Amino acid sequence: SSAKPSSNHKNIKAPCKRFVLYYHDILFNGTDAANATSAAAANATLLGNFSFGQLVVFDDPMTKDNHLLSPPVARAQGFYFYDMKSTYNAWFAYTLIFNSSEHRGTINIMGADMMMEKTRDLSVVGGTGDFFLTRGIATFTTDTLQGFYYFRLKMDIKLYECY
Amino acid sequence: SSAKPSSNHKNIKAPCKRFVLYYHDILFNGTDAANATSAAAANATLLGNFSFGQLVVFDDPMTKDNHLLSPPVARAQGFYFYDMKSTYNAWFAYTLIFNSSEHRGTINIMGADMMMEKTRDLSVVGGTGDFFLTRGIATFTTDTLQGFYYFRLKMDIKLYECY
Amino acid sequence: SSAKPSSNHKNIKAPCKRFVLYYHDILFNGTDAANATSAAAANATLLGNFSFGQLVVFDDPMTKDNHLLSPPVARAQGFYFYDMKSTYNAWFAYTLIFNSSEHRGTINIMGADMMMEKTRDLSVVGGTGDFFLTRGIATFTTDTLQGFYYFRLKMDIKLYECY
Repeated sequence: SSAKPSSNHKNIKAPCKRFVLYYHDILFNGTDAANATSAAAANATLLGNFSFGQLVVFDDPMTKDNHLLSPPVARAQGFYFYDMKSTYNAWFAYTLIFNSSEHRGTINIMGADMMMEKTRDLSVVGGTGDFFLTRGIATFTTDTLQGFYYFRLKMDIKLYECY
Repeated sequence: SSAKPSSNHKNIKAPCKRFVLYYHDILFNGTDAANATSAAAANATLLGNFSFGQLVVFDDPMTKDNHLLSPPVARAQGFYFYDMKSTYNAWFAYTLIFNSSEHRGTINIMGADMMMEKTRDLSVVGGTGDFFLTRGIATFTTDTLQGFYYFRLKMDIKLYECY
Repeated sequence: SSAKPSSNHKNIKAPCKRFVLYYHDILFNGTDAANATSAAAANATLLGNFSFGQLVVFDDPMTKDNHLLSPPVARAQGFYFYDMKSTYNAWFAYTLIFNSSEHRGTINIMGADMMMEKTRDLSVVGGTGDFFLTRGIATFTTDTLQGFYYFRLKMDIKLYECY
């Protein structure tokens, strides 16, 4: 059927709040505890060759530009796991934690990170503090991928419900 | 108290969008990588006899009828784990991914799958693309359960907020 | 910038529904299966000394007062994991399941449990049954922490969207 009454997007407005942040993930290699920001809680299974089932817990810095050593403006705490046998593909659930003079509160996000797509959208499903009950979209772009132990995502956070 | 002001459901309307899809999960048994669609990232603990703690990551096909080999109209990517010591019971979080001429976008779902109930409701907590910011209910029914390695759920997805 | 149009909270009203419940978590120690309500599905990694990566699946009783043996009014089913290398800090996703004459339905919650804060807010992202499509805030307070195997949280559940 060509009738798609729910997809005409007639009510979409501009975001009430928007910011772009960079997410830096340094996976623990067993010896770099001082620098690492994440670690594998479950190892990859034997299904395929793309880390299917590897589950990584993270506490990652979020910066305003794409420099790892820029001052973090938030933390991202949560997890991701790989979930395809034919390519790298991940699923995320996490909280952005803000605790500065600019913003105080949290934003909760979940969704699929289809790594082979140029951009992919996840759901902002809730928030607290300055982001009380917010909803919206977090658009991921891979900014860099350096082997198994460092990658950086650009996260374009668009909030459409603000209170 | 008998006062339940929040439960009279006075504002409930019919769904703005609804579809029924079948979820097929083929758990990797160690040798069937070609057919398997999921794998255990964490094994069952020793608490009880019902796989407590077993965590399964999946990339499962969704079909319009209950035939495993029907053409998938979406993928379900996410995880479930078993969480009761006295019976089989699970908890799910996942994304339905649509990428066809009919629908393009994602729907994010989480909640308890109380397997012993005939039907159980999970929450649609967000969406992207054609399903921008959607919310609703996903009602699960077990369609078949074949030993440890194949089960099929009917998912009746009712969206009450569409844009 | 001091302009924070999304944080003036001008639309915040009192909750349409609110209740305080206590969450009791008894982690399986390998021998107390009769009493345990949770178990570690993934063990701690070697990153730091605060159980980074330990992932615990739970089916915990919720009571109206802080006595472990009070009659449960709900179950909490889901998981948490520890995610900081410098202190204890956790992340939760779970479902509150009500099945009594007073309430029938579920409430889905996710967010960061910054254990070092006196109180911390998580997001209520959805609900079913009596709690159809609800949204709100779950405020955690640590009520007691007894070694590795028992802790109790006070959860102040405030629902701001009721149908």
